[in-house]
Amino acid sequence: MNITKFAIPEIIFGRGSLNYAGQCALRLGARKVFLVSDAGIEKAGWVQRLMDILKKEGVEWIYYPGVTPNPRDVQVEQGAEFYLKNGADVIVAIGGGSAMDTAKGIAIIASNGGHIRDYEGANRVSRPLPPMVLITTTAGSGSDISQFCIITDVKRAVKMSIITRTLVPNISIVDPLILRTKSETLIIQSAIDALAHAVEAYTSTIASPFTEMQSLKAIDLIFTYLPRAVETRSIDCLEKLSIAAVSASMAFSNASLGAEHALAHSLGGRFDMRHGVVHPILLTAVMRFNLDYAEKKLADIGRVVLNKTLDSPRETALAGIERLEAFFASFNVSLKLRQEISEKDKHILKSICKTAVNDACNLTNPRPASWQELLAICQEVW
Amino acid sequence: MNITKFAIPEIIFGRGSLNYAGQCALRLGARKVFLVSDAGIEKAGWVQRLMDILKKEGVEWIYYPGVTPNPRDVQVEQGAEFYLKNGADVIVAIGGGSAMDTAKGIAIIASNGGHIRDYEGANRVSRPLPPMVLITTTAGSGSDISQFCIITDVKRAVKMSIITRTLVPNISIVDPLILRTKSETLIIQSAIDALAHAVEAYTSTIASPFTEMQSLKAIDLIFTYLPRAVETRSIDCLEKLSIAAVSASMAFSNASLGAEHALAHSLGGRFDMRHGVVHPILLTAVMRFNLDYAEKKLADIGRVVLNKTLDSPRETALAGIERLEAFFASFNVSLKLRQEISEKDKHILKSICKTAVNDACNLTNPRPASWQELLAICQEVW
Repeated sequence: MNITKFAIPEIIFGRGSLNYAGQCALRLGARKVFLVSDAGIEKAGWVQRLMDILKKEGVEWIYYPGVTPNPRDVQVEQGAEFYLKNGADVIVAIGGGSAMDTAKGIAIIASNGGHIRDYEGANRVSRPLPPMVLITTTAGSGSDISQFCIITDVKRAVKMSIITRTLVPNISIVDPLILRTKSETLIIQSAIDALAHAVEAYTSTIASPFTEMQSLKAIDLIFTYLPRAVETRSIDCLEKLSIAAVSASMAFSNASLGAEHALAHSLGGRFDMRHGVVHPILLTAVMRFNLDYAEKKLADIGRVVLNKTLDSPRETALAGIERLEAFFASFNVSLKLRQEISEKDKHILKSICKTAVNDACNLTNPRPASWQELLAICQEVW
Repeated sequence: MNITKFAIPEIIFGRGSLNYAGQCALRLGARKVFLVSDAGIEKAGWVQRLMDILKKEGVEWIYYPGVTPNPRDVQVEQGAEFYLKNGADVIVAIGGGSAMDTAKGIAIIASNGGHIRDYEGANRVSRPLPPMVLITTTAGSGSDISQFCIITDVKRAVKMSIITRTLVPNISIVDPLILRTKSETLIIQSAIDALAHAVEAYTSTIASPFTEMQSLKAIDLIFTYLPRAVETRSIDCLEKLSIAAVSASMAFSNASLGAEHALAHSLGGRFDMRHGVVHPILLTAVMRFNLDYAEKKLADIGRVVLNKTLDSPRETALAGIERLEAFFASFNVSLKLRQEISEKDKHILKSICKTAVNDACNLTNPRPASWQELLAICQEVW
């Protein structure tokens, strides 16, 4: 094994852990918190709840509500201006991946200046960031744990991956009680996002024993508890999905991902598709593409989802992939690209694959993938 | 599940990772490193090797060599004086638990003042500590990962547990190549120390899913690879033991331990016994004591060490404990207290148990244990 690095934030996990938000901000030296969220979280009442908690702890804040799904470069740059103008310090974000990635992007620009596209790729942020407390409202994106930040470059219509250790927030608060206000669709999409993180991190060329155990745990939990969570909406099941999302995030943050996420970023940048929508379409196709290069690892995943091994690693791996396909099909999600992209836009896939091949995630795919091979995968699942 | 916190340092793991020590110190703002180690590590050449690495990176240092096994309060206080007098900043320690715990104790006194006994127990350190880079030379103590610091109070002849999140160092460097210079005895004792961490963290009343998976992974790895490591001394096996030690440390640092460690601290304070010597004597006796209160969890441990389950959780748990006993017996270690303590000192066990019952680790034992019950356990393994 080569040298491997493993970095995660301090995690405060559990029902009611949101109540620690004010204390966390104070512990990081807050005098004026920069609060980031979006309209959906506001509407569900969580922004007001968080403001009440900050107030109770005597923490001042300034609220930046300008978050949209799949955050864009301009929003991040406007947010940084707002941060600096108001003399804010600790950044506290509550929301899904979009709100948290917006907060991270604002942190980069506020302390490093320039344009967010200057930081695309791995390890390009040099100055330390403002302290961050991230509070996830989904069990999926993992932005509250990870060193990743995904921002759309509007001009190029691509989701940029910005990856650096300094993007690991100081504190991640994961309160499963927040999941109770989520729709069934969002719970499914988020869990599938976490599942894709776990799978691609597990087969990544830079996976380590520390990330591998987290990946397998996440896969196991999502297979067991997502169907039950959808059916019962019980807090016990939602909590298990939260644990899975945290585990998957520890894994992918440190092991990175693969070709499927590279494609998801490019597709998402062009068509504003959420990750959770892309994965059921592409993940198993990419796993089949990787089979010869990651047979043993895909067999490990097979063993977890099948709860047994077959006669050979290859059979176990293939049966596991089929089991995953059946799992996706059991939910009300698209399984073909044509369900999400209109026929007239099909020709754009070529340029999407040419972008995806340069995404940082493609570097750690177990099988090197050219844009032509990525295009073949997209055509296979059209 | 209640609210749980999970905090670990940034970990740099792998063969040759020692080479990152200088860069790590610089990243934490070092101008004059306070270097801590002991005579054994010096003799093995690792202190010189570390100095060469610091020199190459242009890092100045001042060397504090005053570490002994089972570090004492006075040493820590002298070390802090030396730190302050020399205007040092980042603390870099290389060694086993003793060197790293000395470094942590020095960090506490240098920034918080007073006597080290003022900080005994949980969460009693208020001011932030100097940045720390800890480099473990054993696969056992876990001090490089944990929020624990164990210092002997000479007057009371007790090992004090000091536990606080700020004791988690900034960076832990784990380089399995360093293990090649270790004796067989030390490799066995260290691995058994890690095993005891994993077992007691797993049955702790504040274990969480994040610590549980680390515990079981560590137990599995130590069972599989300690015999092979002793036999072959191969770097592959030593690396597995390092992974196990890191995993076990992530677990116990966040889940704490149990009655066995409470006893180990008191015995160690009185008789200067290393943890790795105490555990083979006491661990399984404490597991039997806990059986009615942690049957399911002990059955999980049984499943891992037996690689199968028996007809009932209780049978699996008991067979697992027997398997552990056989495992300890397969190494050249003491299995009875009388092999380590002379008959004339046996009467001291009573006062040792009266001290142990107040150790912070005893609070999280699955079965509440009085000093009389602890004494009965000691007599059982006499």
